[in-house]
Amino acid sequence: MSTPPMFELFAFWRTSATYRVRVALNLKGIVAHERIINIDANEQRSPEFLKINPLGAIPALVESGHAPLTQSLAILEFIDEMQPSPALLPADIHGRARVRAIALMLAADTHPLITPRVKKYLTGSAGFDDASWRAWQIHWFGTGLAAVEQRLATDPQTGIFCHGDTPTMADICLASIIAVMRIFKITIPDIPTIDRIMAACEANEAFAKADPLCQAGAPA
Amino acid sequence: MSTPPMFELFAFWRTSATYRVRVALNLKGIVAHERIINIDANEQRSPEFLKINPLGAIPALVESGHAPLTQSLAILEFIDEMQPSPALLPADIHGRARVRAIALMLAADTHPLITPRVKKYLTGSAGFDDASWRAWQIHWFGTGLAAVEQRLATDPQTGIFCHGDTPTMADICLASIIAVMRIFKITIPDIPTIDRIMAACEANEAFAKADPLCQAGAPA
Repeated sequence: MSTPPMFELFAFWRTSATYRVRVALNLKGIVAHERIINIDANEQRSPEFLKINPLGAIPALVESGHAPLTQSLAILEFIDEMQPSPALLPADIHGRARVRAIALMLAADTHPLITPRVKKYLTGSAGFDDASWRAWQIHWFGTGLAAVEQRLATDPQTGIFCHGDTPTMADICLASIIAVMRIFKITIPDIPTIDRIMAACEANEAFAKADPLCQAGAPA
Repeated sequence: MSTPPMFELFAFWRTSATYRVRVALNLKGIVAHERIINIDANEQRSPEFLKINPLGAIPALVESGHAPLTQSLAILEFIDEMQPSPALLPADIHGRARVRAIALMLAADTHPLITPRVKKYLTGSAGFDDASWRAWQIHWFGTGLAAVEQRLATDPQTGIFCHGDTPTMADICLASIIAVMRIFKITIPDIPTIDRIMAACEANEAFAKADPLCQAGAPA
């Protein structure tokens, strides 16, 4: 009998990209031992963690005997290929392209703009104060979610979730953005389709268990 | 006999994301009729184009009878699933995760920070002058390429290309970043592995034919 692969997830309670991997693992019923990398204490730059990921970025999913996997969307695709059921992508290639496009609108076009490294640059060299940084966050969250809302609201392929009636990578990325917006106490008006889909995600145990505020290290 | 699908690619000579799709189509030998959307003239916001993509973003790949496909990485995955040979991803799931991670370090972590919409915000509301914008561009191109260089240089899976000896999505994304850097006359020092892989890409006809300066609408 072969033993199932052993996984370690290098993670932090708050990060959007870590949240995505947690939801995917929960949906598949895969257990990963979570190792906390406290980015508030800059532990992602520690010599110990740099041996895991020389780039100093989380999440990193480590399967024993293999090089660490990085980049949340690449990890989601890996998890889906390793254990195809329940699927995180539809079966037809046009549907898969639609789901991946929605996921990328959020994880590639929106999230990279509001990461800690961008905050560091803008509030450092560029002289942004707290209000300027908050306006920047609200602008890009709002732009990204408005675009996704428009795409979802007008498309008959949208169902209970972003694509049909089961959660996909698109829902994982959408929920990951909403989760960090809540931590920053940012709300975006006039996104009724997204609000409805988020309620469906929250009712799903795999998403609920991944809530940043329920993770080790989160504020009480 | 079934007829092959007909494709239209809504494109502009200069954009990094359009370049990626051009290379993938060239590698697969798929012909798409290119329709120029002049983003310098804001044509991506024209009523005609908004009927194709209500989000006003290129590239969009349109197959007759289907909804337009958007987001370059989703389009690359679609092209690879539609016509699997030559493959844009390796066969093993760990290799696929590695290639996708490198592609995302460039297309998600780097490129979204230097797009026209970010320039518009920073040079508008945020008061960046030309020198501040150029410093921002150089900072993020440099950060992204240094991270990719470190990953490629130390990994035995790196070959003539980013992963082994045939081009993958990782090379397409890498070349797409270098292509726009050249247009902006930005060079990043100390990336010998990337420089070597770029030379291999340039020697490949599929990449050479996609050179932004060879496209309709490019400056003479």
